[in-house]
Amino acid sequence: MPEISLRAEQMPASPIRKLVPLADAARARGTKIYHLNIGQPDLPSPKEGLESLKHIDRKVLEYSPSDGYRSLREKLVTYYEQYQIKLSPEEIIVTTGGSEAVLFAFMSCLNPGDEIIVPEPAYANYMAFAISAGAVIRPVVASIENGFALPPIEEFEKLINDRTRGILICNPNNPTGYLYTRREMNRIRDMVKKYDLFLFSDEVYREFIYTGSPYISACHLEGIEQNVVLIDSVSKRYSECGIRIGALITKNKTLRNAVMKFCQARLSPPLIGQIIAEASIDAPRSYSTEVYEEYIERRKCLIDGLNRIPGVYSPIPMGAFYTVARLPVDDSDKFCAWCLSDFEYEGETVMMAPASGFYSDPECGRNEVRIAYVLKKEDLERALLILGKALEAYNARK
Amino acid sequence: MPEISLRAEQMPASPIRKLVPLADAARARGTKIYHLNIGQPDLPSPKEGLESLKHIDRKVLEYSPSDGYRSLREKLVTYYEQYQIKLSPEEIIVTTGGSEAVLFAFMSCLNPGDEIIVPEPAYANYMAFAISAGAVIRPVVASIENGFALPPIEEFEKLINDRTRGILICNPNNPTGYLYTRREMNRIRDMVKKYDLFLFSDEVYREFIYTGSPYISACHLEGIEQNVVLIDSVSKRYSECGIRIGALITKNKTLRNAVMKFCQARLSPPLIGQIIAEASIDAPRSYSTEVYEEYIERRKCLIDGLNRIPGVYSPIPMGAFYTVARLPVDDSDKFCAWCLSDFEYEGETVMMAPASGFYSDPECGRNEVRIAYVLKKEDLERALLILGKALEAYNARK
Repeated sequence: MPEISLRAEQMPASPIRKLVPLADAARARGTKIYHLNIGQPDLPSPKEGLESLKHIDRKVLEYSPSDGYRSLREKLVTYYEQYQIKLSPEEIIVTTGGSEAVLFAFMSCLNPGDEIIVPEPAYANYMAFAISAGAVIRPVVASIENGFALPPIEEFEKLINDRTRGILICNPNNPTGYLYTRREMNRIRDMVKKYDLFLFSDEVYREFIYTGSPYISACHLEGIEQNVVLIDSVSKRYSECGIRIGALITKNKTLRNAVMKFCQARLSPPLIGQIIAEASIDAPRSYSTEVYEEYIERRKCLIDGLNRIPGVYSPIPMGAFYTVARLPVDDSDKFCAWCLSDFEYEGETVMMAPASGFYSDPECGRNEVRIAYVLKKEDLERALLILGKALEAYNARK
Repeated sequence: MPEISLRAEQMPASPIRKLVPLADAARARGTKIYHLNIGQPDLPSPKEGLESLKHIDRKVLEYSPSDGYRSLREKLVTYYEQYQIKLSPEEIIVTTGGSEAVLFAFMSCLNPGDEIIVPEPAYANYMAFAISAGAVIRPVVASIENGFALPPIEEFEKLINDRTRGILICNPNNPTGYLYTRREMNRIRDMVKKYDLFLFSDEVYREFIYTGSPYISACHLEGIEQNVVLIDSVSKRYSECGIRIGALITKNKTLRNAVMKFCQARLSPPLIGQIIAEASIDAPRSYSTEVYEEYIERRKCLIDGLNRIPGVYSPIPMGAFYTVARLPVDDSDKFCAWCLSDFEYEGETVMMAPASGFYSDPECGRNEVRIAYVLKKEDLERALLILGKALEAYNARK
């Protein structure tokens, strides 16, 4: 039997995957599980998107252009205008989810052995795409103590060497909910300029910013237009994770031509998803407002509730719909597994993502978990009660 | 401005892409173009698939499982049973088109520098996916003289060294339409077994076999079950190229676990495409029969017509909907470009894919073109007339 590749061996399994068999077993015992572990919004997709499906009167479900339908790209131009991001349709390449945008960005920019610097905790799949491209992620660790603010630039500079090719940020951040300030973004800009690096900026959560602080996109930064690669997706903003429509955006034409070769090889992004995404851009302002207000409430409910549990601490996330909280446990991997395998409260338990999966060094974040607030408020309240009971029982064990 | 990766530089541009600006210019001059260059079937998608769109009553377009919906995988099991391919749903991983199946197979099986042997002419994008994985394609060249039959096994064995990890075939073949015989498939099996190689077998055209010869799938070959990776797609069989639903199928569990890590990183295959694909499996037998009969007619029309043009030779393709034909020209790249830039007959011209794009060595197939018969018979007849006139005019030039 021939062997699999070293790359495949190095690929991380999904950080929550190891918990799935435990969750399945708990469900099989009749235990109800509150899923605090997933980033799948429960809120409805816009009516305009869902309705568009009913009006597809094509006879042949044919390939779309490799960079996506122009009509969608033109509409995206107007979408970004709202955020003072000025683009032409040519600067937008439609991808199969934000995931493919990250993969193609890495494939096009990074040689095997090249390094990118990523503030951690970070979205676990960046690592998977870096391994796919043979590239190396060098982490700078942000701390829960200051709410996961950008680590000092000196921490980045310590890691810069002749293999360093880029910096990757996620803003607002998954998993921490942190929103980079103008000052922090300017520091990133200066560093990108000084060392002529790529700046990969994943901004798929821009709709979810809960404070008065401004959203500073990588595309707002002057003087590094040729260095910026924006990663985007409609998944979160329209609750349309399943349609797999994202975008890779850059003003760097050489890079776009390179990315297009990867796009042509995979022929086209999903046709039906593009139709839905295009229609969803027409959703009225009230759609986003309602979604936004719902998350504002949930955020308050979750963060207040977490900080009321003895020994638990969560900074207040400024955006996205996650928080990384510190729990009074020795090892959150063990605690999260225990919640599924050995605990229930009135027939119910909680599933969370241990934060170790969001750090390169699994020793970091040993007592942290990522919690998503994509449940109804009543369910969040109930989940918080259960989490409190679980922590009590866990720490009373020994 | 930071540089793009070497990998991106090596990535081939689509072989027909360089002709697109010429085609655009011809159209702008008012010239009608018969597209013999594309593999997008013009026949309608099954009603069942199109209708399924109207009945989607979900409120949230959520992620599907990373390996695809179980209901789709179960239905695919029954689909493959018709072809005496026995599978369990666990052995089928749903991918974003056959393209992603090829990419994930290479990523999971091949280390940078590893080699796979591919009979050529071959589908151009295999090369792109090999480059993405850092792997090397070693070609064995099939000849138009014997209808692009499998080259002798000695030709393969000459290339086998300690970096050789697999063999890739496409059966029925794109671009040649060749169907491997039982004897050829057994030879491949013996070689795969002897050297313990992976056998990547792209069989997306299995519905399109026009002779009484049997379809021998890689999955029919005994004793190499752990070596076979079947690449599949619903694109061609249901005229659903746009929905991006394919599959990677293997009985090798270690490999499946590896592939699943790449699947989890990209989260999920397209949700709506899976719904359409699942419904399309319910299309009545009459759907496939009608499509099949249409292609039988077109094939006859095209191949007879080609061989009637002085100096043109096309073998009779046994499957798929392409042929590679030899033209009486010095350089088919130049001729195909000239058809678009310098020729018209009664306001019309033809666009073909120069075969050079289907060989690693562009010197091979210098006087060959790939022609797809995905046009109505009347259009094919007209295109053949125009091709004849073009050849006359081209060769009268000097």
